[in-house]
Amino acid sequence: MDPETLSPFFNAKGVAILGASSKPNKLSYGILENLLQYGYKGEVYPINPNAESILGKRAYPSILEVPDPVELAVIVLPVGMVLESLETCGTRGIKAVIIVTGGFREVGESGKKLEDECVQIARHYGMRIIGPNCLGTMAIHTGLDSTFIKGMPDLGPIAFISQSGAICGGVVDLVLESHFGFSYFTSLGNEMDVTETDMLEYVALDPQVKVIAMYVEEVKDGPRFMEVARKVSHEKPIVLLKGGKNDAGAKAISSHTGSMAGSYTAYQAAFKQSGVLEVDTLADLFNLAWAFGCQELPAGNKVAIATNAGGAAALASDALTQYGMDLAVISPAMQETLRTRLNSSAQVSNPIDMLGGAEPQDYEWALGQVSLDQAVDALHPILVPQSLVDTMGVAKTWVDVAKKTKKTFLACLMGAASARESAAYLNKQRIPTYQYPEQGPRVFGGMLKYKKISQKGPFEPMKYSASKASKHNVEEILNTGVYSFGEEETREILQAYEVPVVPGDLAKDAEEADQIAERVGYPVVLKISAEGILHKSDVGGIVLNLDNAENLRVAFDKLIEHIREVAPKATIYGAMVEKMAAKGLELIVGVKRDATFGPMVLIGSGGVLVEMFKDVAVGIAPFSKTDALEMINATSAGKMLPGFRGSAKLDQDALVDVICRLAQLALDHPEIQEIEINPLILFPEGQGALALDSRTILG
Amino acid sequence: MDPETLSPFFNAKGVAILGASSKPNKLSYGILENLLQYGYKGEVYPINPNAESILGKRAYPSILEVPDPVELAVIVLPVGMVLESLETCGTRGIKAVIIVTGGFREVGESGKKLEDECVQIARHYGMRIIGPNCLGTMAIHTGLDSTFIKGMPDLGPIAFISQSGAICGGVVDLVLESHFGFSYFTSLGNEMDVTETDMLEYVALDPQVKVIAMYVEEVKDGPRFMEVARKVSHEKPIVLLKGGKNDAGAKAISSHTGSMAGSYTAYQAAFKQSGVLEVDTLADLFNLAWAFGCQELPAGNKVAIATNAGGAAALASDALTQYGMDLAVISPAMQETLRTRLNSSAQVSNPIDMLGGAEPQDYEWALGQVSLDQAVDALHPILVPQSLVDTMGVAKTWVDVAKKTKKTFLACLMGAASARESAAYLNKQRIPTYQYPEQGPRVFGGMLKYKKISQKGPFEPMKYSASKASKHNVEEILNTGVYSFGEEETREILQAYEVPVVPGDLAKDAEEADQIAERVGYPVVLKISAEGILHKSDVGGIVLNLDNAENLRVAFDKLIEHIREVAPKATIYGAMVEKMAAKGLELIVGVKRDATFGPMVLIGSGGVLVEMFKDVAVGIAPFSKTDALEMINATSAGKMLPGFRGSAKLDQDALVDVICRLAQLALDHPEIQEIEINPLILFPEGQGALALDSRTILG
Repeated sequence: MDPETLSPFFNAKGVAILGASSKPNKLSYGILENLLQYGYKGEVYPINPNAESILGKRAYPSILEVPDPVELAVIVLPVGMVLESLETCGTRGIKAVIIVTGGFREVGESGKKLEDECVQIARHYGMRIIGPNCLGTMAIHTGLDSTFIKGMPDLGPIAFISQSGAICGGVVDLVLESHFGFSYFTSLGNEMDVTETDMLEYVALDPQVKVIAMYVEEVKDGPRFMEVARKVSHEKPIVLLKGGKNDAGAKAISSHTGSMAGSYTAYQAAFKQSGVLEVDTLADLFNLAWAFGCQELPAGNKVAIATNAGGAAALASDALTQYGMDLAVISPAMQETLRTRLNSSAQVSNPIDMLGGAEPQDYEWALGQVSLDQAVDALHPILVPQSLVDTMGVAKTWVDVAKKTKKTFLACLMGAASARESAAYLNKQRIPTYQYPEQGPRVFGGMLKYKKISQKGPFEPMKYSASKASKHNVEEILNTGVYSFGEEETREILQAYEVPVVPGDLAKDAEEADQIAERVGYPVVLKISAEGILHKSDVGGIVLNLDNAENLRVAFDKLIEHIREVAPKATIYGAMVEKMAAKGLELIVGVKRDATFGPMVLIGSGGVLVEMFKDVAVGIAPFSKTDALEMINATSAGKMLPGFRGSAKLDQDALVDVICRLAQLALDHPEIQEIEINPLILFPEGQGALALDSRTILG
Repeated sequence: MDPETLSPFFNAKGVAILGASSKPNKLSYGILENLLQYGYKGEVYPINPNAESILGKRAYPSILEVPDPVELAVIVLPVGMVLESLETCGTRGIKAVIIVTGGFREVGESGKKLEDECVQIARHYGMRIIGPNCLGTMAIHTGLDSTFIKGMPDLGPIAFISQSGAICGGVVDLVLESHFGFSYFTSLGNEMDVTETDMLEYVALDPQVKVIAMYVEEVKDGPRFMEVARKVSHEKPIVLLKGGKNDAGAKAISSHTGSMAGSYTAYQAAFKQSGVLEVDTLADLFNLAWAFGCQELPAGNKVAIATNAGGAAALASDALTQYGMDLAVISPAMQETLRTRLNSSAQVSNPIDMLGGAEPQDYEWALGQVSLDQAVDALHPILVPQSLVDTMGVAKTWVDVAKKTKKTFLACLMGAASARESAAYLNKQRIPTYQYPEQGPRVFGGMLKYKKISQKGPFEPMKYSASKASKHNVEEILNTGVYSFGEEETREILQAYEVPVVPGDLAKDAEEADQIAERVGYPVVLKISAEGILHKSDVGGIVLNLDNAENLRVAFDKLIEHIREVAPKATIYGAMVEKMAAKGLELIVGVKRDATFGPMVLIGSGGVLVEMFKDVAVGIAPFSKTDALEMINATSAGKMLPGFRGSAKLDQDALVDVICRLAQLALDHPEIQEIEINPLILFPEGQGALALDSRTILG
């Protein structure tokens, strides 16, 4: 839907509150108060059949009787009255409705049904709905505050989108004091209509918005979120905190792919691929967003620290390294210059430690000088308030320097009450100021990450088009009523998508085995084929390196006998006879379908190493070649591809190709829940890859 | 030295300030003010030949003229006067001196020399010195505050030891507002005499101290620190923040206290082995210490959350899992009970979400009930202040419940200004209260870790006594004037300490090779022995699986020829001929000497996996069997020892034995800088281990 349909939520010419109470201890009273006190220029209409007026505003018995203009309705009625009042809103021509009322999907099936009915009404009248079970929204620039939250943040560059109303409330209190500035504050509740993705798309269009901060528990439509986020993140940073990381139910360990990739793993991969910066804590969410809102991205990763406290600088320096930044090297000439005006005991290499007695003019001099140094990409002054030093005086010099330089400027005031006024001053001047020495460096690290995101080229999904015949072949195999396939069927599926599979076939007896071996060429491998055996190697179901017919025949019969003994309940189909493959890097490549994001591809160290190291990375299909390479490089196995200690460079293109074909297979055939190749042997450059074993599970 | 020698720093009957200024803009003036304003009962003597009195206190021209009792001297004189005044203090019978003055070791060699001279004087007179270049100390219970920091923290259970004065200053400001309570606040500066370990030993003896928080940049004496920390941590938690973890951070330090931080890996191992809880941030340091100081350890890891904000509870739940805790399962019966008095829409399973309107009585009911539930080990209420809810009222119910239960109780008030008064109230009532929903869970995780530490048995170092003859053999090899040894010599060193080494010997020609092979038995392996070749396998210097004399001879000559070609500059000694070992788990075991802590043993995945996975763990020798096993289990390879997917259980005892013998070797022979076995093959239980290749580097 057109993002502009969300405009009335923030720019409505008039607002009606359905269920406005005249009692000050009711939430709707708080909403009315907020609509009246933050400079909203439109008309406000309390709807209450039992009141003449509330808070000096004339009350109306029904929204039908409210004069024009009225564009937004806020519903705070009991849940039983919502449906009818929505209908009335539609009749009145309202285009945007916020349903604060709770008791919908969150209470069960009946609530879910009620939501569906609401959405039908909305669609019929062309209305957009935020909520239900939400806290409303704030547009700081128009003063339209439909929440009952106490206080309104300063006007500024952050748009905050939250799936939790309570988080909104708590955050307002936190940012009021720090004076971080916002453009939007939106609580979306159950998202029966307007989703986090809709809101992301809308706020990103506003030039006042420099950064989007999100608190997300569940993405409604994974692929659409990724599409929108990819587009937005290229222009403006999206910083996101995920709540409910562990809610994903534990799935049965049906295969390695199945057990190793939970739903949060998919979220992480989706965020990474679509350029969303995920943070770990609520504090990080706003610390980072505020820096994006106020400061330019650093040109590089070299930071100059000026401090009056060596210990604090040590902690900041440690954290800089931890988050991918580094201390800038201050040239001897610059060190000489610094020394001319600083305390003779001051340390003039980086961190510049001017000692406990450092005065405003010391900071001004040191920061002013290093801000001219080309080796410095960013400035990070640290002050621990001292009894004899004027904290506000120091803060003012920081503002002066920051205004004159284009370098990224983040500040640390390590104190509570004694630093509060100065910190607020700095933040109001758009210098992000943090309380602890580790916080600034974390933020720098996030900025550096986003810099790389913003420099990425446009998203070009890799595509592999399987022929109609191939697709048909796969469909035939998948539609046999069986829900799990071993190697025999999976190799056919893979071959339909031109994934290279080791030559071989199923032999029912020793005679057949020899025929197959003659065809593919000795030496060969024997692998038991049976229903009821999950890990062939665990039960001694694999015999390697059989180099002639005699050995093969003996081995075949012994293998069948052995399996009958150790797994009497298994249904034995025979044994796969396959050409013994050359040595190479053993990998695992698989796909697992995620309920939110679709096919999730997994790659990593294969063979027995899978369990030893759990060295895997995942990505959501479709992806670009860059995505595929990032995924490969995120594994230890992947780091071996360029060769190490004299070993050959491996065939990276072949691996990317297998990944891409497997992804396409899963995209084309939604029945496939999991498919796994383990091991996939990767050979030296130009020599390709080979799937040695594989299996498939349907949904 | 007797820890009691530190008592005068905190309990002196009289204090003299050498260099007390009468000017309010001088630091010494601030010190005098602090000595007078926080209830210190002893006499205070400003020493200043040019003043009659300062701040109403009679000034003396010299400490020699000060009447009894005077036990502590605080020196704030210029650095050039320190030596003489120390001498005077000694003459006057002073037993404790704090040198605030800077300009010692941190400015270079002359300063270092000056420190040595100071220490000599101190030893002569039996004086203890804190500093130089420090901020002094606070004993909160006696009011003896020799710092110039503004404000004094509440009296309480935390002793804080800091190698950075500035960190002390900043922290006081932070804890004044939160009302975390302290017993000691000590800034140690350059530690010319009293070290962090001395202070740890001293404060741990005070029954008022329930927990020790440390900011440490450099441990002066590694083994002694570990010994003291091991003893203390068994009784009281030690929480520690390390500054200068990497090059950048260390650089910040070498400037300011003149210390040279050692390898951080060794620090981490030493902390872990001696029961010290290392934290990542300054906020964590005090958040965790405060909980230890106020609350009992949780009986288990099950936490009940009661909240008025679902989003905040989701973040807390995620963090609980992240830090090893879990949500308690609330029984259906308890859920029924909760429901009887809570909002009908409230969620009564854990987290108990009483929704935005939750009132004090709701918290009281929910927390009171679950505090009786045996399935619950700890309580964590969360409140996001709401405009219509009385925050202080809620806080009071938390105090009531906490007083009635023995379960661990941590609180979260997610707000700034609106929550400050209530948070202070809770902290004063010894309920640790945090601002963000992720902080409490981090603290719970730390408490759980300490619980395990406190339950460990006493430290019993494993010892292996090498015979005199063995030690002599090793000395002979080490004292040949060479600084690096290949396998040939290293296997002799290892054999002297009974580390099992693969049978074999050096062959100079094919003839000798065959003789050796006959002795050890075919098949054998050939490995080039040459100076100038670091990684034999990289240059094709290893030939495997030679199973008869003919093949061996051919291979020997080809190997020598090949190495001459690829490494023309290497000096070839011949080739090692060794019995081909059976298959097993390939490990690396080594020792590297750390400047601070001594021999650091390393184990991990060996062979080519070393570089692929960097799967290693380290430990400081000597260690107990528990330490050795923890080290083994910290690696992915170690986790394979009990066997997996049907493979045999491996010989853990043999591995512990090798580790212990290697450690003893390094302890006995300080010349050894590094010694490494790679691979060490570990066989199934009862079948031992075998060193296949090894080398040694001397310091």
